[in-house]
Amino acid sequence: MSDHVVALCGGVGGAKLAHGLTLALPPDALSLIVNTGDDFRHLGLHISPDLDSVMYALAGLADPVRGWGRREETWTFMQALKGLGGDTWFQLGDGDLATHVERTRRLAQGDSLSAVTAELCRALGIAVRVLPMSDDAVRTRVLSGDGWLDFQEYFVHRQCQPAVRDFAFAGADTARAQPEALAALHRDDLRAIVICPSNPFVSVDPILAVAGLRAAIRASGAPVIAVTPIIGGKAIKGPAAKMLAELGLEVSGAAVARHYADLIQGFVIDALDPLPEPLRGVTFFRAATLMRTTEDRVRLAYATLQAADTLRGTRA
Amino acid sequence: MSDHVVALCGGVGGAKLAHGLTLALPPDALSLIVNTGDDFRHLGLHISPDLDSVMYALAGLADPVRGWGRREETWTFMQALKGLGGDTWFQLGDGDLATHVERTRRLAQGDSLSAVTAELCRALGIAVRVLPMSDDAVRTRVLSGDGWLDFQEYFVHRQCQPAVRDFAFAGADTARAQPEALAALHRDDLRAIVICPSNPFVSVDPILAVAGLRAAIRASGAPVIAVTPIIGGKAIKGPAAKMLAELGLEVSGAAVARHYADLIQGFVIDALDPLPEPLRGVTFFRAATLMRTTEDRVRLAYATLQAADTLRGTRA
Repeated sequence: MSDHVVALCGGVGGAKLAHGLTLALPPDALSLIVNTGDDFRHLGLHISPDLDSVMYALAGLADPVRGWGRREETWTFMQALKGLGGDTWFQLGDGDLATHVERTRRLAQGDSLSAVTAELCRALGIAVRVLPMSDDAVRTRVLSGDGWLDFQEYFVHRQCQPAVRDFAFAGADTARAQPEALAALHRDDLRAIVICPSNPFVSVDPILAVAGLRAAIRASGAPVIAVTPIIGGKAIKGPAAKMLAELGLEVSGAAVARHYADLIQGFVIDALDPLPEPLRGVTFFRAATLMRTTEDRVRLAYATLQAADTLRGTRA
Repeated sequence: MSDHVVALCGGVGGAKLAHGLTLALPPDALSLIVNTGDDFRHLGLHISPDLDSVMYALAGLADPVRGWGRREETWTFMQALKGLGGDTWFQLGDGDLATHVERTRRLAQGDSLSAVTAELCRALGIAVRVLPMSDDAVRTRVLSGDGWLDFQEYFVHRQCQPAVRDFAFAGADTARAQPEALAALHRDDLRAIVICPSNPFVSVDPILAVAGLRAAIRASGAPVIAVTPIIGGKAIKGPAAKMLAELGLEVSGAAVARHYADLIQGFVIDALDPLPEPLRGVTFFRAATLMRTTEDRVRLAYATLQAADTLRGTRA
């Protein structure tokens, strides 16, 4: 039976659909490939924002109000660090710190990011495979009017204010695709490859920039389907809409579909958005893509998988 | 005018008198030389328990109830770390973590422990010089019935349960004395060298094991005076009394005075303890040595300095 699903995702937005997929599928039927282009060292700690967002979402630890980080978080560390004259532009919750300290410790003793992630997931009771796109460093950079900026400098420190012109993924050309991610994409029984509603430019493109992964997706016989991160001309979270506008593109799901056009066969737009102009090789589907509740996540997961199933056999 | 005081101290107990001395003297009249034999790496962080205790005491940040760590502390990090399967035998408060993370970060960028300590003190508004005994690693080890144990293994993990037989200070023979500490001990205008009521075996002896420091103390013309960490046959805090008993020594201030006999000219016992048998070359003084309040700390500081002043000129 053709039954494995691979999902590509970034942080918070994508993690919601990833969570829905974990509820819609048995654990061994899903592999999540997660963006690590946002990873950076800060205060001597290795921080993997998207891996953390995915882990927290899957473990039920994500803060539902703030939209990032852990629930029941405290901030004593940040206050004390401020008192010591430390760098406080990147908010680190006390519970969240445990993830960074533990990850950094294990990486320093020679474990791979994949191995560390697997250990953390096991401890948190996450059964599905959560795979960093690569164990090698890939670093997203943003070209703005002020020149090239490191991602977190742009995203957190400058709060996405500089207008973007281009993106680069330093290290992506030589980064080796994470082996299990590659193996999952090469499976004969692959049911679908889902691109979660993450930011196309800074969450999904870094994954696709890892040469082995893009090639494996292209070579796969399974349908590739993306879910819109744009609803009614707006991004639910993050700078996707702002970036589309700054790049001179339409702020719509259709524009995101065109961005992925050489890779996807299906695209899920929001049920309330108008059906886009036809796009060669891409079938549009409509679904309720706003995920406020766990039920919304599961419903969108089923809708996406159903859509993908209708595309089966459309690939060469 | 002969006006500089050097105080040697370890953690919590010694830090209380150190705090009293900072209130009894102008900031530039006092140098604190602090034990770093307890320092260790844990979770990838450089932890300096005695430097931290001293800094927190001087900055008014010490927790008065728990007796260690910071006041208004939270413990979210430890709870989260437990959930991740991390090492939780060493309690790290969320605010305390900021010190360890910031120190580790600065050491990793090549700053010395002295420089980092000076920066942290400056940020915390501590005007007096807080000097690690050495910028080189000295590691206290404890010989027990179970063999040699690293200090924190003995002190925290095994909660001082193994009976002690001997102590070693790995690295002390090659460690260079901290230069400002050495310079302070070499001052012509040195008024007194105070050994704070810290554990003689694991807080003060590591400082004295740094060859340059012991030699400078011996060579100094200033009176050396120690304050008892034992009151009424008990240690106020920590394993000093237990250690004296396990080493077959009397559990008394007098026994601590004998331990320091080759180095001191004065020893302050508690006002409620009987005056010890005479000890050649050592004058005993009595004072209220229990420090419950800030006023107690200041009073004991003045009493110790006054006692030292009466010893002036008793040295060759």
